[in-house]
Amino acid sequence: MKKGLLIVISGPSGAGKGSICKELTKMLNLDISISETTRQPREGEVDGKNYFFVTKEAFMDKVQKDGFLEYAEVYGNFYGTPKDYVMSKIEEGKDIVLEIDFQGALQVKERYPEGVFIFILPPSLEELKNRIVHRGSETEKSLEERFGSALKEISYIDKYDYCVINDEVEKAANKVKVIIEAEHYRVTKEIYNLIQKYKEEMKCSTLQ
Amino acid sequence: MKKGLLIVISGPSGAGKGSICKELTKMLNLDISISETTRQPREGEVDGKNYFFVTKEAFMDKVQKDGFLEYAEVYGNFYGTPKDYVMSKIEEGKDIVLEIDFQGALQVKERYPEGVFIFILPPSLEELKNRIVHRGSETEKSLEERFGSALKEISYIDKYDYCVINDEVEKAANKVKVIIEAEHYRVTKEIYNLIQKYKEEMKCSTLQ
Repeated sequence: MKKGLLIVISGPSGAGKGSICKELTKMLNLDISISETTRQPREGEVDGKNYFFVTKEAFMDKVQKDGFLEYAEVYGNFYGTPKDYVMSKIEEGKDIVLEIDFQGALQVKERYPEGVFIFILPPSLEELKNRIVHRGSETEKSLEERFGSALKEISYIDKYDYCVINDEVEKAANKVKVIIEAEHYRVTKEIYNLIQKYKEEMKCSTLQ
Repeated sequence: MKKGLLIVISGPSGAGKGSICKELTKMLNLDISISETTRQPREGEVDGKNYFFVTKEAFMDKVQKDGFLEYAEVYGNFYGTPKDYVMSKIEEGKDIVLEIDFQGALQVKERYPEGVFIFILPPSLEELKNRIVHRGSETEKSLEERFGSALKEISYIDKYDYCVINDEVEKAANKVKVIIEAEHYRVTKEIYNLIQKYKEEMKCSTLQ
């Protein structure tokens, strides 16, 4: 069976990764990976839907058991992508999307370089500031931290395969959709093996 | 200015490369490169449209002057892609498609690895045979030659980035269109430089 794609959607905080992923699930038959986190739920967030909210002890236990495809500490909290869950989806031929920050993306790239790494950018600097400032849940301190982190993240763009500017969520999601579709036409090792078989068949046949 | 893409459409004789390229020009604003050849025109072929039909002397003179992006001898005739023409299109920001055989594709890959290399496959072995047999212009001998060549070409699929099965011309052309669109979202050196500039701007600005 043809393997699914591991698609990593990353980019600075406030670039609109979450909105794009939500839009993508309406457009394509794919799964969004659910991360485990030790941080407190924000208003409206549901356990098992937005995140699996776990204790630090449970998280560290899983780290010890090499149970994460990636994990990172961000603003004092831990976030991780459960390895088994993602890998079983891929083996089933299902595409799965990870919406993660750059630290996670780099770890995934190391462990699964055949993934598709997409960097989301806000349309402008002003827009990025607005998006960070108007996200109600941040304190003054974490606002500055997030802005500094955005600066840092942007310099990692060369580690990614694609870059999509999020001027309008639907448009940007459509661009990501196009990227995913194109990636399905990649020449992979599986196709190469199939072609070798096909070639043998051709050799055995005659022109008449 | 953003450079255009060099898109190489290749695959065995009879896979339908020509029909796909024709369909593509209806779908996208791109140019199809016109090759120079020393072979005789087939019925209906127009000089300066299908090919530039040139003498062997003129062709060899251009080879000496390194005027081809690729050239090859196929069935006793020479075919070549004029370098200046293609490169000027790319510099103008225009996408250009080369419809060439595998020998040419490999030469282009060596000289322009940032090109997009797409391999076209017929939907089945039977279909490939039918397409080769029913192309009226071939003699019995060149028919066998072409079939043998198809076998050889297929084993080069791992040199390509993408593989599209031509079950229906319009569908296949649409897949190539998707690939071209996705390639425009690639993180290139140009984007990386732009981002560095953007980052400097961010550093100079304040949050308030």
